[in-house]
Amino acid sequence: MDTDLTAGLDELVLANRILAFEGQGDRTSGHISWRDPKGRGLWIKRARIGMDEVVRRQDVHLIDFDGKLIEGTGQQHYEWPIHAEIMRSRPDVHAVGHTHAFYSQIFASTDEPLRPVGKEGVWFDDPPKFQETCSLIRTPALGKRLAKKLGSNDAVFLMSHGVAFVGTNVRECTLVGIYLEAAVRAQITIAMTGYKTKVPKKADALAKRAQTRTESGINNYWDYLARKLAEEAKA
Amino acid sequence: MDTDLTAGLDELVLANRILAFEGQGDRTSGHISWRDPKGRGLWIKRARIGMDEVVRRQDVHLIDFDGKLIEGTGQQHYEWPIHAEIMRSRPDVHAVGHTHAFYSQIFASTDEPLRPVGKEGVWFDDPPKFQETCSLIRTPALGKRLAKKLGSNDAVFLMSHGVAFVGTNVRECTLVGIYLEAAVRAQITIAMTGYKTKVPKKADALAKRAQTRTESGINNYWDYLARKLAEEAKA
Amino acid sequence: MDTDLTAGLDELVLANRILAFEGQGDRTSGHISWRDPKGRGLWIKRARIGMDEVVRRQDVHLIDFDGKLIEGTGQQHYEWPIHAEIMRSRPDVHAVGHTHAFYSQIFASTDEPLRPVGKEGVWFDDPPKFQETCSLIRTPALGKRLAKKLGSNDAVFLMSHGVAFVGTNVRECTLVGIYLEAAVRAQITIAMTGYKTKVPKKADALAKRAQTRTESGINNYWDYLARKLAEEAKA
Amino acid sequence: MDTDLTAGLDELVLANRILAFEGQGDRTSGHISWRDPKGRGLWIKRARIGMDEVVRRQDVHLIDFDGKLIEGTGQQHYEWPIHAEIMRSRPDVHAVGHTHAFYSQIFASTDEPLRPVGKEGVWFDDPPKFQETCSLIRTPALGKRLAKKLGSNDAVFLMSHGVAFVGTNVRECTLVGIYLEAAVRAQITIAMTGYKTKVPKKADALAKRAQTRTESGINNYWDYLARKLAEEAKA
Repeated sequence: MDTDLTAGLDELVLANRILAFEGQGDRTSGHISWRDPKGRGLWIKRARIGMDEVVRRQDVHLIDFDGKLIEGTGQQHYEWPIHAEIMRSRPDVHAVGHTHAFYSQIFASTDEPLRPVGKEGVWFDDPPKFQETCSLIRTPALGKRLAKKLGSNDAVFLMSHGVAFVGTNVRECTLVGIYLEAAVRAQITIAMTGYKTKVPKKADALAKRAQTRTESGINNYWDYLARKLAEEAKA
Repeated sequence: MDTDLTAGLDELVLANRILAFEGQGDRTSGHISWRDPKGRGLWIKRARIGMDEVVRRQDVHLIDFDGKLIEGTGQQHYEWPIHAEIMRSRPDVHAVGHTHAFYSQIFASTDEPLRPVGKEGVWFDDPPKFQETCSLIRTPALGKRLAKKLGSNDAVFLMSHGVAFVGTNVRECTLVGIYLEAAVRAQITIAMTGYKTKVPKKADALAKRAQTRTESGINNYWDYLARKLAEEAKA
Repeated sequence: MDTDLTAGLDELVLANRILAFEGQGDRTSGHISWRDPKGRGLWIKRARIGMDEVVRRQDVHLIDFDGKLIEGTGQQHYEWPIHAEIMRSRPDVHAVGHTHAFYSQIFASTDEPLRPVGKEGVWFDDPPKFQETCSLIRTPALGKRLAKKLGSNDAVFLMSHGVAFVGTNVRECTLVGIYLEAAVRAQITIAMTGYKTKVPKKADALAKRAQTRTESGINNYWDYLARKLAEEAKA
Repeated sequence: MDTDLTAGLDELVLANRILAFEGQGDRTSGHISWRDPKGRGLWIKRARIGMDEVVRRQDVHLIDFDGKLIEGTGQQHYEWPIHAEIMRSRPDVHAVGHTHAFYSQIFASTDEPLRPVGKEGVWFDDPPKFQETCSLIRTPALGKRLAKKLGSNDAVFLMSHGVAFVGTNVRECTLVGIYLEAAVRAQITIAMTGYKTKVPKKADALAKRAQTRTESGINNYWDYLARKLAEEAKA
């Protein structure tokens, strides 16, 4: 294995544990993938273990865009088409996450727009909601429809199911998933009060997005989370 | 003891700790039972210890369907008729759980139908609510009435009390209890916002149920939870 | 020290830690008292330590009903009149608790009756609300007014402050505080949904209270909590 | 370093960890500053570490009121103007905190007044809300506008961003941040029920504030929190 691949896989392994640390694990459900740098397909954790249990490179494997195992061992996740079809339709995307994050999941049953009432909300335009079915995305056909609903957005909510989110790399994708869940939680919590809320004007929100959704900002949070996980592993 | 019995009891012991791990324990309240494979009655934990404290086969005992202790030691739970009467009226049921799970408990005071706004909701038709009394189910007569209310359903909510749930085996029963609480929590949380919600069409929900309520799906989650408990015990 | 006194003090020490374990601690605020068996006054923890830090008999001291230190060391809590005046007016009461339990505290700002939507609610008639002031109860005069508002009830909510609760002994008092907070949390949580709720008829609720508010029921829960604290101390 | 400076820095280091312990950390975001006793500027933690990771004097550095590094190492937080401009405009203020505390953050999007429904609410008059922008406060110009909005108050909410709070010293500032978040949480939680609430009359609330916002009261809580952190560090 070359050095770039090794480093990328180590990052993917960590991304799984970070999502779990942030409360997005659902036992053995939830996964995040990385586009193979050699164009062979995508790296993703094997089925039957939780995101918190992904601790070494052997816990992820390489599948092609038709779901065939290319490198590594273990059973593929049924929902590999989420990753494959989004990557097929979005050359800019190099990482895809899918979890059952609680607030994102229940928000998917509504037609409410996402509004930036929390600091994390400014990262997003209003992500679409995939509501034609609550089925597992087990077929390329269904994956394609989900990818179409996602369009050029960062994320798509899945009714009675969960959420999928993307990034130009694994770190960004991970933070997008974390920020989206926080943004939805903020909106849902204040909505419970019935209080009228105001949100930043579009230009103001976009300016804040430019300030915070930066490589260095993402790296600061990523490195912090990596340190927390390292401490936890030692304890 | 024969091997099947031993393995079944080990599973029942673990089921108690899994329900506690999932937050369904209420100090020494809450219990799950297993139909004796020899037809003598049911195995259930003894009273006065919490579900999290069930760690060895000696922590469960065998009672007959009249509540008489057949094998093992310790005091019977007052509410053994929940288990005995449900098993009597439902030959298909081989495991029964009863807990005070928070969301299920408060949902029992409403006449709201359960709707699948969360991914777990698709496992259920709308379970009935037992609201004629909040009494402990300490008599066969009351147990029979609860069993009648349950009918052919997976679960029954008990007003100002808790919830009872069943399965064709201990693993399924445990997961039914966990999924039901998650489904109710999802519905209650989004209801707090006042947002309009949509849910999958019946056929779509049933298809998802068929996809996820499978032996292998249940085993994946069960095995994951068993690993978490083993780690916790080591720490 | 005689054996009864020693055992009683050990129980009081544990009661402080149990209330903290149940989430009712508020840094160094919150306390529970025990009527001296020799009629000299009441035993209560010293100020400046949290309920979770009460680990030995020396952490509690004896004051008379005028707040004078009789035995032991440390500074008295400013709010000793809560305990002294309630005990003066209620010979049946041998233990008094005062905490800032979150749900009980915010419920004190409403005029809503407490209704038994949760299993814990059946323990209570609708406890009164002390809303004439949010002041600390630092004077016998104010203590007397609080005791008057309490009347013959189990508990009294204090607006923008917290809650006080009583028992015929330390164990009962501790469980009353825990049950009350759980009962209020259940009512508040379901109220957030706007769902219509029904509650047991009075006779049914009273019958359930008789079934669960028993010496053996209280001891089961107390002993369980004592074991959890012992485990925690070992870890 | 002289003794006063050393003691002050140790206190500042601890204040960071206390705010994190109280749940106000947001990965590497959130900071609290201390006015240099020699008038050279302000001490604040360096960027890229979380408040929970501030463990030694070297983790904080001295910047002047123009953001220039005077003593110590590490990168300055972008939002140093929050601290510098508030201190410039408020000679009485010797400590400034800024966090993304959840309830304070979402409350910033409303025009609701803060009402003392919880015990912590009596510490505050209704703090202003800074809603002209959700931008990071990276320039002295923006810092001046925030300071103007703060005026002579204890705190200011920042729409889609967080909260800033002040004190005459580090301990008071820390407790102000903790009390404010608790006060907002209490108001938001009871608001979710739709119950009508009453609050203490102004004079009564002010009297309670005088009773509880005292040096000894603050020290009691501070010392308690310091002990909890010391225990945690040992474990």
